[in-house]
Amino acid sequence: MTTNNTRLSVAMIGHAFMGAAHSQAWRTAPHFFDLPMDVRMALVCGQDGKRAAAAAERLGWADSAPDWRIAIERDDIDLVDICTPGHTHAEVAIAALDAGKHVLCEKPLANTVDEAERMAAAAERAAAHGIRAMVGFTYRRVPAVALARRLVEEGRIGEIRHVRAQYLQDWITDPEAPLSWRLEKDKAGSGALGDIGAHIIDLAQHIVGDQILAVVGHTETFVKERPLAAEHAGLSGTASAERGQVTVDDAAVFLARFGKGAVGVFEATRFATGRKNTIRVEVSGSAGSVAFDFDDMNVLEFYDATEPAETAGFRRIPVTEPGHPYVGAWWPAGHWLGYEHGFTHQVVDLVHAIADGADPAPSFLDGLQVQRVLSAVETSSDTRSWQEIPR
Amino acid sequence: MTTNNTRLSVAMIGHAFMGAAHSQAWRTAPHFFDLPMDVRMALVCGQDGKRAAAAAERLGWADSAPDWRIAIERDDIDLVDICTPGHTHAEVAIAALDAGKHVLCEKPLANTVDEAERMAAAAERAAAHGIRAMVGFTYRRVPAVALARRLVEEGRIGEIRHVRAQYLQDWITDPEAPLSWRLEKDKAGSGALGDIGAHIIDLAQHIVGDQILAVVGHTETFVKERPLAAEHAGLSGTASAERGQVTVDDAAVFLARFGKGAVGVFEATRFATGRKNTIRVEVSGSAGSVAFDFDDMNVLEFYDATEPAETAGFRRIPVTEPGHPYVGAWWPAGHWLGYEHGFTHQVVDLVHAIADGADPAPSFLDGLQVQRVLSAVETSSDTRSWQEIPR
Amino acid sequence: MTTNNTRLSVAMIGHAFMGAAHSQAWRTAPHFFDLPMDVRMALVCGQDGKRAAAAAERLGWADSAPDWRIAIERDDIDLVDICTPGHTHAEVAIAALDAGKHVLCEKPLANTVDEAERMAAAAERAAAHGIRAMVGFTYRRVPAVALARRLVEEGRIGEIRHVRAQYLQDWITDPEAPLSWRLEKDKAGSGALGDIGAHIIDLAQHIVGDQILAVVGHTETFVKERPLAAEHAGLSGTASAERGQVTVDDAAVFLARFGKGAVGVFEATRFATGRKNTIRVEVSGSAGSVAFDFDDMNVLEFYDATEPAETAGFRRIPVTEPGHPYVGAWWPAGHWLGYEHGFTHQVVDLVHAIADGADPAPSFLDGLQVQRVLSAVETSSDTRSWQEIPR
Amino acid sequence: MTTNNTRLSVAMIGHAFMGAAHSQAWRTAPHFFDLPMDVRMALVCGQDGKRAAAAAERLGWADSAPDWRIAIERDDIDLVDICTPGHTHAEVAIAALDAGKHVLCEKPLANTVDEAERMAAAAERAAAHGIRAMVGFTYRRVPAVALARRLVEEGRIGEIRHVRAQYLQDWITDPEAPLSWRLEKDKAGSGALGDIGAHIIDLAQHIVGDQILAVVGHTETFVKERPLAAEHAGLSGTASAERGQVTVDDAAVFLARFGKGAVGVFEATRFATGRKNTIRVEVSGSAGSVAFDFDDMNVLEFYDATEPAETAGFRRIPVTEPGHPYVGAWWPAGHWLGYEHGFTHQVVDLVHAIADGADPAPSFLDGLQVQRVLSAVETSSDTRSWQEIPR
Repeated sequence: MTTNNTRLSVAMIGHAFMGAAHSQAWRTAPHFFDLPMDVRMALVCGQDGKRAAAAAERLGWADSAPDWRIAIERDDIDLVDICTPGHTHAEVAIAALDAGKHVLCEKPLANTVDEAERMAAAAERAAAHGIRAMVGFTYRRVPAVALARRLVEEGRIGEIRHVRAQYLQDWITDPEAPLSWRLEKDKAGSGALGDIGAHIIDLAQHIVGDQILAVVGHTETFVKERPLAAEHAGLSGTASAERGQVTVDDAAVFLARFGKGAVGVFEATRFATGRKNTIRVEVSGSAGSVAFDFDDMNVLEFYDATEPAETAGFRRIPVTEPGHPYVGAWWPAGHWLGYEHGFTHQVVDLVHAIADGADPAPSFLDGLQVQRVLSAVETSSDTRSWQEIPR
Repeated sequence: MTTNNTRLSVAMIGHAFMGAAHSQAWRTAPHFFDLPMDVRMALVCGQDGKRAAAAAERLGWADSAPDWRIAIERDDIDLVDICTPGHTHAEVAIAALDAGKHVLCEKPLANTVDEAERMAAAAERAAAHGIRAMVGFTYRRVPAVALARRLVEEGRIGEIRHVRAQYLQDWITDPEAPLSWRLEKDKAGSGALGDIGAHIIDLAQHIVGDQILAVVGHTETFVKERPLAAEHAGLSGTASAERGQVTVDDAAVFLARFGKGAVGVFEATRFATGRKNTIRVEVSGSAGSVAFDFDDMNVLEFYDATEPAETAGFRRIPVTEPGHPYVGAWWPAGHWLGYEHGFTHQVVDLVHAIADGADPAPSFLDGLQVQRVLSAVETSSDTRSWQEIPR
Repeated sequence: MTTNNTRLSVAMIGHAFMGAAHSQAWRTAPHFFDLPMDVRMALVCGQDGKRAAAAAERLGWADSAPDWRIAIERDDIDLVDICTPGHTHAEVAIAALDAGKHVLCEKPLANTVDEAERMAAAAERAAAHGIRAMVGFTYRRVPAVALARRLVEEGRIGEIRHVRAQYLQDWITDPEAPLSWRLEKDKAGSGALGDIGAHIIDLAQHIVGDQILAVVGHTETFVKERPLAAEHAGLSGTASAERGQVTVDDAAVFLARFGKGAVGVFEATRFATGRKNTIRVEVSGSAGSVAFDFDDMNVLEFYDATEPAETAGFRRIPVTEPGHPYVGAWWPAGHWLGYEHGFTHQVVDLVHAIADGADPAPSFLDGLQVQRVLSAVETSSDTRSWQEIPR
Repeated sequence: MTTNNTRLSVAMIGHAFMGAAHSQAWRTAPHFFDLPMDVRMALVCGQDGKRAAAAAERLGWADSAPDWRIAIERDDIDLVDICTPGHTHAEVAIAALDAGKHVLCEKPLANTVDEAERMAAAAERAAAHGIRAMVGFTYRRVPAVALARRLVEEGRIGEIRHVRAQYLQDWITDPEAPLSWRLEKDKAGSGALGDIGAHIIDLAQHIVGDQILAVVGHTETFVKERPLAAEHAGLSGTASAERGQVTVDDAAVFLARFGKGAVGVFEATRFATGRKNTIRVEVSGSAGSVAFDFDDMNVLEFYDATEPAETAGFRRIPVTEPGHPYVGAWWPAGHWLGYEHGFTHQVVDLVHAIADGADPAPSFLDGLQVQRVLSAVETSSDTRSWQEIPR
């Protein structure tokens, strides 16, 4: 139902888990939302040409290529969507931006602060030419999270005192789970910290509308050696007899102080047995609280301290009303959305930003700031002391 | 901390499960509530004098007797608290009332409508002399239920459309569970229907402030024969090799129409595997809803339909604020009450009613009305058709 | 990623709420599942040609037509997907089947038993020629429901005693909500009963693997007159000053007896204030229980009565493991599915059945049986007595 | 139902919130549990003789006195139960122990490590003479917590990786809440840290059966000045116009490393708006997890990772079975206990320890260890670095 003629041709780099989610988003967005541009799923790139071709067919891309550089070179490509491991982000994103292509880059923005800084600089250069860059902290766009942000912004919970955030998984509690690329520092940058800790850092800062100033943290690798995976491209792989070092953290915990005085407690772990993908962010303010739990992703809990005590209580708001963020485009109230819808909303907002000539959020600068927090947590774990976040 | 001299000497008849709960209530009430009378736990009666004496010591009664008639005969006894099976209620209660003693009688009021009518008549005669009678629908006095009643009374949920009520237990799903007195019609009157169905009938009518006009129901006995219990006095007993007929229902379900037009759905069962003592009552009105679940007994769920859609949701009200019913006498907010506290509240309200010369609620007339509903459900199950409740 | 050449060209009739859900399913299925046929979204039909054309573009159909008969006439159409109100089902489905086209028909199968019987007869005739017919009870294919069915089938909860089922909505509690086609008997057949009651009848029978033998029910129309809607095609419309009669039920409640002795309690209502689309089915058996709540649609609660009492409890199974029904095609554990995924699973199973030359479930016979239960509830509400379901 | 003649005469010091809870415990224990001694509620002491006398009557103590020293002096007193603010604990407890009286002392054991060390030394001296000392970490004796401990002990959750613990209250979020003794360092020692943080430190160490080795923490006082309370003896008081300094923390957060390698995250706050008395402890191990939430205090959540993935999930164990810790003495399954029952269990275990000549747990040494953790958190907050806990 696009009502205009501006074409937006997308090339996606990488086609594993994130590639599938992004593909579904690009495919679905135009059918539920009025997009101001005509999105084309033009090209998918992967190192292995045969697998890239299969991915193109399965995921619905018009073409495939065995090298991401082809996406940069092709004039018809308007946007590069980066779904590869973190160690590739900087090179691809900077090349794309410098070639005048918009970029959507999976999180964390990079594996190091240095890379992230260069990416943010490239984004700034590109913005001068109307080229946009966005980092994929997709959970911001779960409607319940967007509503939490809105309520905080409206002052409904007052001055913020506390942030408590957890991202709990358990997919490698088994010591025999293989050594995937996500457990190798040179590819993933860090472990639970960068993979899922990055999400709750962004979520927390986004919801409260403030930044972390300082952290003290601890990272831990419970299982230090694992069987080598037969292949390293996906979340899971078959284990081999040979073993390799786990070079990233299994878990990261840290305390944080925010700019306006809030106190934060964060935990990201892949060893929370029984918790599959539990993301909890609770924010306590002087006038109320909001609490989000991804295990109940369509609900926002809201406590309004201005209610009379007799009827005060956390209310479970089903965030499926037409007036709720993003929801009007989908189903009637009580007909729940799932994990992948956040990716669709991400694409919708990005396309609007491009069409409107506006900077999308979260920007590469936002991604850089998260990277600095990640780095400070690691340093803090080494030095056993608090670390300030450079601004 | 009683501030007056009027003595209230209590005799309790029966000392099994309900006897223990009532004893704890009589013992505890004066220490948390300002009672207008000086309560004495004077006498406990049981058929077996030796066991009654042991019960007196264990439960804290000054004296014991092997026959309930002794309680009636003793001039110093002011109140008779009946905790025996249903088939004894009418005889004991009528004798006590006619002897000028206040009566607290466990539910259901009786085993038959006829008995209940004679009891209500005795209560009416006694009331003319300032003698009070109360039936023990104790769940009314769980603070969250009392708050539900208050909100409905204040019009917070508007005109009532729906009542959905469940009382779910599972203690006899095992076909080898023995044949206790609760499974014998001559002692218990009925099974799940009278034992727990009576509670949700009273709860529903109490919360909505209306009466059931007509019902259609079905009762079922899934396990028709069971090992005889070694003894029949308690909830549990040791099974013997001999078997006997189960003469009551294992489960009862029924639809109901209320006086002001609400539609009710009721289920009482001892075969809801995994549900230990789940009592749920949800009432939907034109302006909101209240939902109570005994599994979360200190919480009332309340939906206010006048809230803007953006922030509307069932709120979980922790019913532990000083202004909530009964709560001020206990602990700070969030320090939960348990099952037995309802019995204490029952005693407190009864003592106040006696001191104030007022009729306590639920009255024997209320108990009679519940009995009529129970009877109509049984008749309906036999006739396979709707039954009106006589008024 | 289809691996064969058999084409399946689909024509969809109707393009409102259900049309959008079905479109998303047809579009998404091939990208996540290996389909044995090459699905084409060929044609969408609607009464208003202009709106049908717009729908084709928005929903992703190659062509549009102002009359469903065109779908029947076109030789290239292999399957007709009926998403229109109930009063049209029989005519369209029978024509399509008789023309040798597979049919997927939204629920309830029809508005009357007579229509449903004719449809089932047409399906039987068509099956002789390898033509398949399926009715869209989509909730069967929520993974948690499919797991419930599997556990019951494996005997994990033993002999079934109880079914308690609720479908609760609140979208017309406001008496000023307009008179949409869903509130008109000639279009919708019935109200809450057929629209949502049909779902819980199918769900309950499917999960327990048994059929309802007899029912006693009550239907109620709380608000008897409403403003006329400006248009009748969708769930919502703008109200006009003129008023019309509501000719369907707002709520339906009934008791049921199942073939193998289970006792059922059902409630379907559009007046459960605060409940948006709450679907609860709990089944209690001699060896355990399963409980599904659509408000927590990715979770199945399971109680295993064979567990030692010390650690027995309802477990909340996140139904997102690779081995769970349908889930392997989607995301890693804990990455939740939403409402629309059931429609995708429905399409997948239907295409497999067609390719395999097998009868899909739920069949038109299943739909007819549900129709008979619906009809018996209505008759029972009129006659105030139990009604047997003809077999 | 005591079956012996050994008398245990108790004197309670203090009669505010904790005094009421302890009184209910002493009064109730003999009626539900078989105690090996004959408990007498002999004496209550308070600074104000008139108020102490009123408390004796209200709380059920035989006598009262205006000075705690009278309890020490009286030969008939066997046990001193200390329910006063922390700054008094050392003096009273040491005097009592040295006088040959058993001691039950409210938590935290003391206001400083120095005091706690002297108390532990006194307890050690006294133990040589058969005199027992116990510190009142009552939440250990909530049945669900005791079950958690038992499952961990049995190895059901394997090697422990993570502890996440929160104690959340909100009773002083209002800046106009008065300056009670709990907000004054000279009386309370610390704020949220010692008052409620002490509880989760003890709970966590108790459940995992391990000790904290090192911490890094942060304490915060959000509201630094408050109206002076009219009186300082209770939780709440009336505010005056004059203001005073808040000299304790409003919130304390810290990370912890346990002896066997687990990583802990702790938060204790009085500013978690909407959370009244929320205590959450979740422990993740290599073979499973346990999670306790005091808001659902009769339930333990247990995840057994050895279950097949298809049916694995956190199970909600209602901890009310006869075989569960402490439960057999109370009500049938599903008839919930409340806040105060933990105090009864504490008294029961203490009396048994005394009768058996065994050291009760938690001992004063346990209390001292918690005090060292509290002190290390405070030091860490000042030094901005990790602190080891001396052993």
